[in-house]
Amino acid sequence: MASCGGDEEVRNKQVILREYVSGFPKESDMSVRSVTMKLKVPEGSNMKKAILVKNLYLSCDPYMRIRMTNIQGPNLFNSFPLSSPLTGFGVAKVLESRNPEYKKGDLIWGTTGWEVYSLITETGALFKIQHTDVPLSYYTGILGMPGLTAFAGFYEICSPKKGEYVFISAASGAVGQLVGQFAKLMGCYVVGSAGSKEKVDLLKNKFGFDGAFNYKEENDLDAALKRFFPEGIDIYFEHVGGKMLDAVLLNMRDHGRIAVCGMISQYNLDQPEGVHNLMCIVYKRIHIKGFAVFDYFDLYPKFLDVVLPYIRQGKIVYVEDIAEGLESGPAALVGLFSGRNVGKQLVVVAHE
Amino acid sequence: MASCGGDEEVRNKQVILREYVSGFPKESDMSVRSVTMKLKVPEGSNMKKAILVKNLYLSCDPYMRIRMTNIQGPNLFNSFPLSSPLTGFGVAKVLESRNPEYKKGDLIWGTTGWEVYSLITETGALFKIQHTDVPLSYYTGILGMPGLTAFAGFYEICSPKKGEYVFISAASGAVGQLVGQFAKLMGCYVVGSAGSKEKVDLLKNKFGFDGAFNYKEENDLDAALKRFFPEGIDIYFEHVGGKMLDAVLLNMRDHGRIAVCGMISQYNLDQPEGVHNLMCIVYKRIHIKGFAVFDYFDLYPKFLDVVLPYIRQGKIVYVEDIAEGLESGPAALVGLFSGRNVGKQLVVVAHE
Repeated sequence: MASCGGDEEVRNKQVILREYVSGFPKESDMSVRSVTMKLKVPEGSNMKKAILVKNLYLSCDPYMRIRMTNIQGPNLFNSFPLSSPLTGFGVAKVLESRNPEYKKGDLIWGTTGWEVYSLITETGALFKIQHTDVPLSYYTGILGMPGLTAFAGFYEICSPKKGEYVFISAASGAVGQLVGQFAKLMGCYVVGSAGSKEKVDLLKNKFGFDGAFNYKEENDLDAALKRFFPEGIDIYFEHVGGKMLDAVLLNMRDHGRIAVCGMISQYNLDQPEGVHNLMCIVYKRIHIKGFAVFDYFDLYPKFLDVVLPYIRQGKIVYVEDIAEGLESGPAALVGLFSGRNVGKQLVVVAHE
Repeated sequence: MASCGGDEEVRNKQVILREYVSGFPKESDMSVRSVTMKLKVPEGSNMKKAILVKNLYLSCDPYMRIRMTNIQGPNLFNSFPLSSPLTGFGVAKVLESRNPEYKKGDLIWGTTGWEVYSLITETGALFKIQHTDVPLSYYTGILGMPGLTAFAGFYEICSPKKGEYVFISAASGAVGQLVGQFAKLMGCYVVGSAGSKEKVDLLKNKFGFDGAFNYKEENDLDAALKRFFPEGIDIYFEHVGGKMLDAVLLNMRDHGRIAVCGMISQYNLDQPEGVHNLMCIVYKRIHIKGFAVFDYFDLYPKFLDVVLPYIRQGKIVYVEDIAEGLESGPAALVGLFSGRNVGKQLVVVAHE
């Protein structure tokens, strides 16, 4: 293990993007390299708030696919720079800090690099980890960005009420499994879709959904939804887009709400699918809202106050799919898009 | 002229729907017939609140196309019964009333029949006309359902702010011309699309829009929108759907709002067009809300308080396209879907 604060040189393993991606990403779009670095925050005017961290857990998130595209024009996301480490959410330990808010040994979560050691100069959107009686990896998932996404998306966007009919796509994923459990705790009827029998079993048996189905085994998504929602859907938590959205629109109830968290089925298509049933927006007076967790970071303390007790009391459970070692990062990330992961996909760089 | 209240028999001309429509409606889908009726509210337990009216002005509205379809399953709208007079919004004079809220001679607007005389048994959603210093026909338009639609849609759904960039499709129509003027009064930058040079001229020269274009002359709607909105669109007031919506999505700004009032380009298609750019909902955190004026009827008094002074002071103008005589009703209604009307389309049944 490296000591810190000296001029010691270490090898820093990194996952870099080799070229921009179109279609499904492949492991070979990335590569793992090793570079030499000094374990020290360098001098410089832009280093006044910098921290040097050791990364422990890295989060694999669907939005990262968008950053693997050569994005033209304005977008919520920027392209990853080529030949640099990917960046994403992660949990890390502070090795050295110029920032008065952090000191050596602190644990943080936020945007870091896909590498063993990262120099973080933009520290404004980092969160200091205060509660360590729960698994640290949870700060890539239930207690991190996906957790806050589920919380803000469900409570702030969906305006849920007890007894309402809730449908969640990609329901066993990092966000979906939580939305479903929040909805159950509120007294809603909850059904989820996922892409394998194993995931469907998880939804029903582990997360307590009222129903679940494997969308790959349904020839007619409209018919599947009508089977589970004879009265229609009040709230749809959207992760996939495309054909599923089209079928859901036909099954929404009047004044239904759709929180659009992502559209993973579309990220790898050169030409996105057409959605045909948008007239339902008028007929049923549907409310659709795209959102990004960045706009809700101020809710984080409130979110922790709600979710930490649920975790401690066992009222909410969380399933992670853990890949060991930075070298497994590219496969883990790519696996999101074939649905290989079961639960929240993360990569362990180091356990401490 | 018929006197009223007696057993007098009169001829009642009616516009009826002959068969359900698929594709573009034609005049021959309707016919005009004449029936005999007594000018008297009949006896019967369901007549306790009934009023007998003489219709003066009938409103031609795009949603009526939906009711001309043989609608299967639940919908905001019911199909018109075949071989009965169409129903729609109109202005009428009360000839006889069993309803304590109305008396002979009162003027009302609300749902009535496409005929000379109508017996109205469901009087709950009628409005008594209190202000007659403005043209009575305005109660089919600026002071009726389309006016309240524009008011609720713009102020309640779009959350407009001074200086924002507003785009309106079908902008010279019954609703669009008002939304644009509301937006100008608020200090927004306003551009509209319409389907002819005459309408584009109206938008620019009569309604004071900052810009306008003829969508039929634009090969590339995305390019057209970028020309008028180099900074993007904050608010889109949606009347047309399909290709225009797809192009607008590409040009929305972050946190943009889309009020979906209708999708007239889709009503006559057996298979609605696909919209491909819905991923923008996530990337730009767009808010889309379908709405129906029925949900905002309680705003009507407030709406009148705002709009009547604007009309009297000449701060808002309104263009009507007036068809003379009930016989002209079918052509006027069908003309909405080819964009033949310039301004609010209505039919004069009688002037008093």
